[in-house]
Amino acid sequence: MRMYDLIEKKKRGGELADEEILFMIRSFVDGSIPDYQMSAMLMAICFQGMTEHETAKMTLAMRDSGDVIDLSPIHGVKVDKHSTGGVGDKTTLIVAPIAAACGVRIAKMSGRGLGHTGGTIDKLESIPGFRIALSEEEFFDIVNTTGLSVIGQTGNLVPADKKLYALRDVTATVDCLPLIASSIMSKKLAAGSDAILLDVKTGSGAFMKTMEDAIRLAETMVAIGEHAGKRTVAMITEMGVPLGRAIGNSLEVIEAVQTLKGEGPKDLYAVCRSLAAEMMILAGVCDEASASAAVDDAVTSGRALAALRAMVAAQGGDVSVINDTERFAKAACRYEVRAVQSGYVCHMDAEQIGIASMKLGAGRARKEDALDYSAGIILQKKYGDKVEAGDVLATLCAGREELFPDAAATLQAAYRFAEEEPSPEQLIYAKVDRDGVTKL
Amino acid sequence: MRMYDLIEKKKRGGELADEEILFMIRSFVDGSIPDYQMSAMLMAICFQGMTEHETAKMTLAMRDSGDVIDLSPIHGVKVDKHSTGGVGDKTTLIVAPIAAACGVRIAKMSGRGLGHTGGTIDKLESIPGFRIALSEEEFFDIVNTTGLSVIGQTGNLVPADKKLYALRDVTATVDCLPLIASSIMSKKLAAGSDAILLDVKTGSGAFMKTMEDAIRLAETMVAIGEHAGKRTVAMITEMGVPLGRAIGNSLEVIEAVQTLKGEGPKDLYAVCRSLAAEMMILAGVCDEASASAAVDDAVTSGRALAALRAMVAAQGGDVSVINDTERFAKAACRYEVRAVQSGYVCHMDAEQIGIASMKLGAGRARKEDALDYSAGIILQKKYGDKVEAGDVLATLCAGREELFPDAAATLQAAYRFAEEEPSPEQLIYAKVDRDGVTKL
Repeated sequence: MRMYDLIEKKKRGGELADEEILFMIRSFVDGSIPDYQMSAMLMAICFQGMTEHETAKMTLAMRDSGDVIDLSPIHGVKVDKHSTGGVGDKTTLIVAPIAAACGVRIAKMSGRGLGHTGGTIDKLESIPGFRIALSEEEFFDIVNTTGLSVIGQTGNLVPADKKLYALRDVTATVDCLPLIASSIMSKKLAAGSDAILLDVKTGSGAFMKTMEDAIRLAETMVAIGEHAGKRTVAMITEMGVPLGRAIGNSLEVIEAVQTLKGEGPKDLYAVCRSLAAEMMILAGVCDEASASAAVDDAVTSGRALAALRAMVAAQGGDVSVINDTERFAKAACRYEVRAVQSGYVCHMDAEQIGIASMKLGAGRARKEDALDYSAGIILQKKYGDKVEAGDVLATLCAGREELFPDAAATLQAAYRFAEEEPSPEQLIYAKVDRDGVTKL
Repeated sequence: MRMYDLIEKKKRGGELADEEILFMIRSFVDGSIPDYQMSAMLMAICFQGMTEHETAKMTLAMRDSGDVIDLSPIHGVKVDKHSTGGVGDKTTLIVAPIAAACGVRIAKMSGRGLGHTGGTIDKLESIPGFRIALSEEEFFDIVNTTGLSVIGQTGNLVPADKKLYALRDVTATVDCLPLIASSIMSKKLAAGSDAILLDVKTGSGAFMKTMEDAIRLAETMVAIGEHAGKRTVAMITEMGVPLGRAIGNSLEVIEAVQTLKGEGPKDLYAVCRSLAAEMMILAGVCDEASASAAVDDAVTSGRALAALRAMVAAQGGDVSVINDTERFAKAACRYEVRAVQSGYVCHMDAEQIGIASMKLGAGRARKEDALDYSAGIILQKKYGDKVEAGDVLATLCAGREELFPDAAATLQAAYRFAEEEPSPEQLIYAKVDRDGVTKL
């Protein structure tokens, strides 16, 4: 078998056979297929696409390129969750404790943030002492004891994806549906859970800008998961506007704690409630009729917050900041961005707001950039709010005053105003599972 | 400027700016753009194409990546000729001496053969002693003295093409019109002639299988040449059937000498007559009305053959083999392929016949393969001929008997027969110049 022939076949719109996909992924990982051939193939895939079958086989070949974690030492049904990434997306910090409090087992590996989107691991590391690198034994023990553990990626998980992603990142081939789907799903499958809940964001702050693309990605990922024998469900949720009011690492942990106390922003709780309910249904601990009430009960009873606290303690984190979020280190400087006109907020560009937060030190422009955990943005005005000129739109937090002018201008430009009150925001658009798409 | 952004732009169907193309070619040649980015770009170009302007600018950037030969020490108008390659295509060995005998100056660099097509340099090297590597001074002197010289590529000519072609060859991006056109024309422009005649072959034995593709390639190359300030004309000629009766290096030199004596195959002379006339018109030594008669006169007077003889002598070749072609070394073994059915020859697959010749040792499957100069095929029956079962279709020449079975089977399968006499073969389809396409 020659890679040349496979490139030629894909270039002409052909479907790669199972053994061709296996050969391609194995040989790329072992170095016998050079980068310049794989990048030509990736570009050909961008134009010709891949069938659902090809995408599934490529994902399995990627999964099998490294370690596949065996979570069987953990008792109960393990459900993983993945978000395609957004601005202010702290749902894992809320959904996982709620689901754990209701009997779901969550043994989750998370990533770091890049560009305008944050990463759960960065948020957790804003808790003093929190360890994201655990031995497998420790990881399993913590899930068996507290119901949940969130760690960084360990071991030799999906080396094919690491190598492919590095190449896609420099050859303008990131933005390609089957490649996105196989990248995400190969990692989820290697991480070993029994079922997978996907939160596919759509809108200006999401990777998938349109509903159509978000649904196509969700359908592709669900098909891959089911092909691999894992129950997989995707929720399509709003990311035109940032989720909640806090953006930035410790700021988002604080908002997550407030939400677990029942005191968080309504939009954030609504999305978390829906995701947590789906996780519980996937795990079989609730049915559709009882799931939402179970979520509410886990919050009002304090069991969900207790689950978060237990995980933080087990992973070496300082629980006192969870008990009293005022104890989190505060940013050295604050700046209030004020409205220059009156009206209703009719649009907020989530991507630009994410970039403003990155400029304040809360995110990374490049992988090697250091983070300022206390930096970020607190949105005082959101979509639908009535604003008078001079009102505070948002409070910026940073380590140095000189970071404010650029970030403030970016944030200012992300808001749009109208005279009329806009129609209410829809937060959850659709559910995609093996039975198809259900609009919500 | 970042290559990433240029790949992204081309992927989305954008037009690269002049300075972007210059940056891309320069940085690729100096190694600062890695192969894996260039191969992604090449694949994106295969799908999105390039505008005429982009293609011309890319060609000029490629030309300027190395030496550009200054032919001004040669007196008179220098006209270059390029064939896109075919089977039995010995036209340069006939057309160049004819044109030189009529006052055109031909200072030509030629290439070697690969796959099913031959190369002029290989054919000339079948003449004992013939030197294809000359100093620039010697090269110019020979053209000034004899009117023509054909040598191998020297110096650092178009390193961008060498590097790009090597990459295209392993990434399935050879077959892309703007890339083919810029590859050919960058070398022609760097070779320094005043005008360029292109022989674009079409049919089963040609790189461009269809007339439509051949005309598009011709139009693109003419536009590039004219953009660079060189008069450029392309002839679209037949390569569904091999040209003439001889295929193989010394066999083709022998047929060229016969043709220069007025004793060659009619199809071969017809194509050469047309090409030589166009060269003379391009050089301004004849007009349309007088060119064909001038060609005939150069042949019947013996001046054309004398020009070939003078070049061979000047480049160290053994003139005795030109004076008496029986003196060429003969292949050790011969084999006659006989018809197994009767009928008219209605199709000959030139590509397969070229492959049969390659299998006999006359061509190279890989660049590093050695050639047997006396090997090849003499076609006894061609398109339109009436054949009885048992007639000799072709004589195979090789150094070893064991090469015959495979080559004979390939050749046999390349012939098709019909009961009815087929319509006469058209040899020259169209002329493409700055005024457009003229069907012939």
